[in-house]
Amino acid sequence: MFHIWSFYPRIGSATPFSLSLARTNLFIAIKLLNAFQSYGMENLVLCSGSRSGPLAIAAGGLAESFDLKLYTAVDERSASFMALGLSAATGKGVIVITTSGSAVGNLLPAAIEADRSCHPIIFITADRPERLKNCGANQSVNQEEFLLAVSRSVKSGPTLGIHKFTSQTLNELTSNVWALAHDFPGPVHLNLPIEEPLLASFEDQKSVWDGWVPDSFNYTQCSITASKLKEPQINSNFPQLDPYKPGILIIGPWRGALKDLNDFQETVKLWSELTGWPVFADPLSLAALNSDSCIKYWEHILSSGISIQEKNLQILRLGPMPSSRILENWLKNISSLQVLITEGDTRPLDPLKIAFQYSRGFVSWYKELLRINKFKTKMQSKLLTSSLKAINKDDQIIANWLGEEFLLDDDITEPSLAYWLPKLLPEEIPIMLSASSPIRDWITFSGCGGYGPRFFYGFRGASGIDGTLSLAMGLSFAKGRMILITGDLALLHDINGWLFSQIKPLSLIIILIDNCGGGIFKQIHNNQIYKGDFNELFIMPQHVNHLELASAYKITSRQVKNFNELKLALDWSLNLSEPVLLRVTTNSSSDSSLRKDISYRLKEYVNESKKNST
Amino acid sequence: MFHIWSFYPRIGSATPFSLSLARTNLFIAIKLLNAFQSYGMENLVLCSGSRSGPLAIAAGGLAESFDLKLYTAVDERSASFMALGLSAATGKGVIVITTSGSAVGNLLPAAIEADRSCHPIIFITADRPERLKNCGANQSVNQEEFLLAVSRSVKSGPTLGIHKFTSQTLNELTSNVWALAHDFPGPVHLNLPIEEPLLASFEDQKSVWDGWVPDSFNYTQCSITASKLKEPQINSNFPQLDPYKPGILIIGPWRGALKDLNDFQETVKLWSELTGWPVFADPLSLAALNSDSCIKYWEHILSSGISIQEKNLQILRLGPMPSSRILENWLKNISSLQVLITEGDTRPLDPLKIAFQYSRGFVSWYKELLRINKFKTKMQSKLLTSSLKAINKDDQIIANWLGEEFLLDDDITEPSLAYWLPKLLPEEIPIMLSASSPIRDWITFSGCGGYGPRFFYGFRGASGIDGTLSLAMGLSFAKGRMILITGDLALLHDINGWLFSQIKPLSLIIILIDNCGGGIFKQIHNNQIYKGDFNELFIMPQHVNHLELASAYKITSRQVKNFNELKLALDWSLNLSEPVLLRVTTNSSSDSSLRKDISYRLKEYVNESKKNST
Repeated sequence: MFHIWSFYPRIGSATPFSLSLARTNLFIAIKLLNAFQSYGMENLVLCSGSRSGPLAIAAGGLAESFDLKLYTAVDERSASFMALGLSAATGKGVIVITTSGSAVGNLLPAAIEADRSCHPIIFITADRPERLKNCGANQSVNQEEFLLAVSRSVKSGPTLGIHKFTSQTLNELTSNVWALAHDFPGPVHLNLPIEEPLLASFEDQKSVWDGWVPDSFNYTQCSITASKLKEPQINSNFPQLDPYKPGILIIGPWRGALKDLNDFQETVKLWSELTGWPVFADPLSLAALNSDSCIKYWEHILSSGISIQEKNLQILRLGPMPSSRILENWLKNISSLQVLITEGDTRPLDPLKIAFQYSRGFVSWYKELLRINKFKTKMQSKLLTSSLKAINKDDQIIANWLGEEFLLDDDITEPSLAYWLPKLLPEEIPIMLSASSPIRDWITFSGCGGYGPRFFYGFRGASGIDGTLSLAMGLSFAKGRMILITGDLALLHDINGWLFSQIKPLSLIIILIDNCGGGIFKQIHNNQIYKGDFNELFIMPQHVNHLELASAYKITSRQVKNFNELKLALDWSLNLSEPVLLRVTTNSSSDSSLRKDISYRLKEYVNESKKNST
Repeated sequence: MFHIWSFYPRIGSATPFSLSLARTNLFIAIKLLNAFQSYGMENLVLCSGSRSGPLAIAAGGLAESFDLKLYTAVDERSASFMALGLSAATGKGVIVITTSGSAVGNLLPAAIEADRSCHPIIFITADRPERLKNCGANQSVNQEEFLLAVSRSVKSGPTLGIHKFTSQTLNELTSNVWALAHDFPGPVHLNLPIEEPLLASFEDQKSVWDGWVPDSFNYTQCSITASKLKEPQINSNFPQLDPYKPGILIIGPWRGALKDLNDFQETVKLWSELTGWPVFADPLSLAALNSDSCIKYWEHILSSGISIQEKNLQILRLGPMPSSRILENWLKNISSLQVLITEGDTRPLDPLKIAFQYSRGFVSWYKELLRINKFKTKMQSKLLTSSLKAINKDDQIIANWLGEEFLLDDDITEPSLAYWLPKLLPEEIPIMLSASSPIRDWITFSGCGGYGPRFFYGFRGASGIDGTLSLAMGLSFAKGRMILITGDLALLHDINGWLFSQIKPLSLIIILIDNCGGGIFKQIHNNQIYKGDFNELFIMPQHVNHLELASAYKITSRQVKNFNELKLALDWSLNLSEPVLLRVTTNSSSDSSLRKDISYRLKEYVNESKKNST
């Protein structure tokens, strides 16, 4: 009557794997991290877990003896954002290690940002071996698919377990992963099945660190397999511009490999000298261009509808679009040629769908243009120079007006803070601008287009407010003294980022603009809700005190009431070598009105000035 | 010389969409939520955002006038876990609304758990319309792929925007989404492109709420499209067991639709009466079986190797495997038939790959068995009864021994807490057990197999420690008074869950077992690291004080030193109607030794007792 139906192969009653497998697991884990070190990996963020045990012990040992910077974290979401900060600061692949299960899912937010903002990051996730996959084993899920949508590539170790790696397969896989994360910088997911037993005994650990090599491994020195940058497919029509005719250079946030930044900056300088075109740059542009061409308040110039009277104005756009609706609307109505140049990102990056996109980078485009046309440098026509002068003059008028508008004796507002902070802070200190309000106010009011020597950071790939604090922590671990300027919801979203302040010394100054919720919605929306509560639905003020919260995380903080206190607090912070929170309270309703009012009055004033001068 | 190359169609300079589109967007958003309400949706969790504006205003209005419970949240990860808690408590689809971008990525951890633990949840994410996709537009990413790996289905609204919905397409899509989330309960992702302008004017809102209907919509009353449960594919060989021969009933965590729970419990009772088989149940089983068959300390019985001497022991396993290595190892060596019955989940759920899996649910299996064999009920043989009696006796010996081992006058340890808490807490109060240590200790020491009337919750789908606090908040919003038992790292991982305490009244008592890090690793690992620091790599103690943290979130809390204080603190908490944190400090090193010591001494004692009694 009974059907005994055993439709899976049985596993023997004895543990199928010998204890020396734990030793091999550890050996491979070390070799794997060694390989990445040999390619240039310096920073590793480790999240807690059991399945990832061999990798944890390998990382711990390497951090003790060799040149590996190890960071540990409980929250994988914060951990991966912190790693992204390290990556953005160093330009080199950072490794994040997690255990199996939903831990892997927590990596997705940072992976999305890494994909879009093009920073190299390698997610190494421990997994169950094949025999425990897809059979309801504890904490065993289809994690190899979780980061697929945003990864440059998803790779797997041997499905039976990492102990099956040979020297050759290990080197091939690791060099491939490293290359994929750097050729077109972005996230790579390396999923590593690990067989039990996971933890090597003390004696086994000792023997591995002392040089034991498993017979199966046939160890040879790791070397990088030569990996060629894939040539991005480009249209055979090379998009040209005429440097002797009028144009505008628009520089969005820098989104290339850090190693290419110097050449990029040099070429921006050459182009600027060649053309004399006015430059409209995003604070995140890293253009480092200190010349008359740099227009500081280009958003006001565009919104007041002045100065740019040229017909057939050529537009050269470098990188993604700055976060400026005013610029977008203006560009939409430029009917002549717009060329958009990206640094290796072949994905369409023009939301206006107007520009001819060239994806091989500005340096390559510039060289090619010169090769074809044999332009001489510094041949600006008088016309261009006078046109630039007109814009410069307007820019100066605006600068003077804002200088009189934003007085240090007045109350702190969000616009006045964006205007004054770059002037109050030593210019060698890098600044990270969080998403939402801060970056927008800096575009409008700071006068910084990334023109100075200061490094600006911001994560505008997916433009989320998530991960803000951890990103800044990661940047600061790599760069030392840093400033983060953030809103209150962004800070709260990633509150676990504070935990990083305990693991290594850190000199991060956080300037919190606390307007009690999502103040930006007061700028976007009309604030009038017929049914329901605008505050509840959009602003979502959270009834926590950030100073108390920080204190619970053992963070020193100060409330700042006015610019005088801000200056004192900055001086005080700069003398400390620990994370400091400075909280500035603003009023999003009155600031929202203020922005509109400034825009209106400034437009009036500039037009009046021009009338008087002609 | 110049190629003017405009390879995208140009968009006209005027805004391509009229202002009445904002009105239509709001109208559709309301109709969409109305449709889900008509199917049974009662709870909606809204995250802040701009693109999701029309949905936010719709939700706000419905919450004000109609029967919709609205919760708001800043952190989408916590929001989605909270929604999962609501879903687990009610068995009905909960909607989570987010804006576009990385916000969607933050839903993945909860979606993973919802997939594996089979709870209905609907993620509605606002997106850019087609014209702004894949072109570098701000906060525009391939979000429609982010939850693909774990969703029952991913659906999209009209790619031009929700204003293109007609009455028919809206009803079809929503009823389909609702059915997909409930037929085989789990997550469904509904991605909704929304065209600008996003926010309707006050007048437009008024007209929509007053009954305005766009011509294009052709509105008809929403009705559920009849959706049939897909018949899971099953093997034609029906797996039979002989109720008159010896066997063991093992009940894992309940993983079916809540509406089927009563029938399930009833059938467990019938099966138990028919067979007289001993029952080994997980605290999360919800078996509610109060009979002599219920074995409380089955893990100790298995580990002491006693009582179960039968040959050809039949094994009936309901639901997933309990978190017990001892049980797994014991089952691995049972050579006769094992039948595993799941409640509609056709995915393989036997990590041992031994059992015949039947996926149409226990009630269906039981009926089919009776239909085929025409068994009479209550026909237990004497053999079975005596065999059960022997196990019962051992169970009682163990219970007595543990009662003498765990004295209320002694210090609190993790095992003694698991032993005493169910006895100290009123049995009508549901308890949620967090992943990692707490659930394991409850299996071993609580004596609870879900046998009593108490509801136990736990999220063992992916068994992550993430989302713990928010899950408990969600459960408590639906069930009222609740207890959460959690470790310190699990609480910290989802610290933003505290924010929910501010939005609606809540009577959640959180018993925090603070052993300063991941104490479970002391149980798993040998603690001996040759190179590196075991604490840093595995335990990861976080130097924050949970009481201070809670206070920053305005949560009342108490430190508890011993069982006497615990009883007083529980009495005090039960008289409050707000969230309360009770912190019990334990020592993971000594507790790790204690578990081993108890296991050893108990085994000795039981064997000694048996020797004496024979």
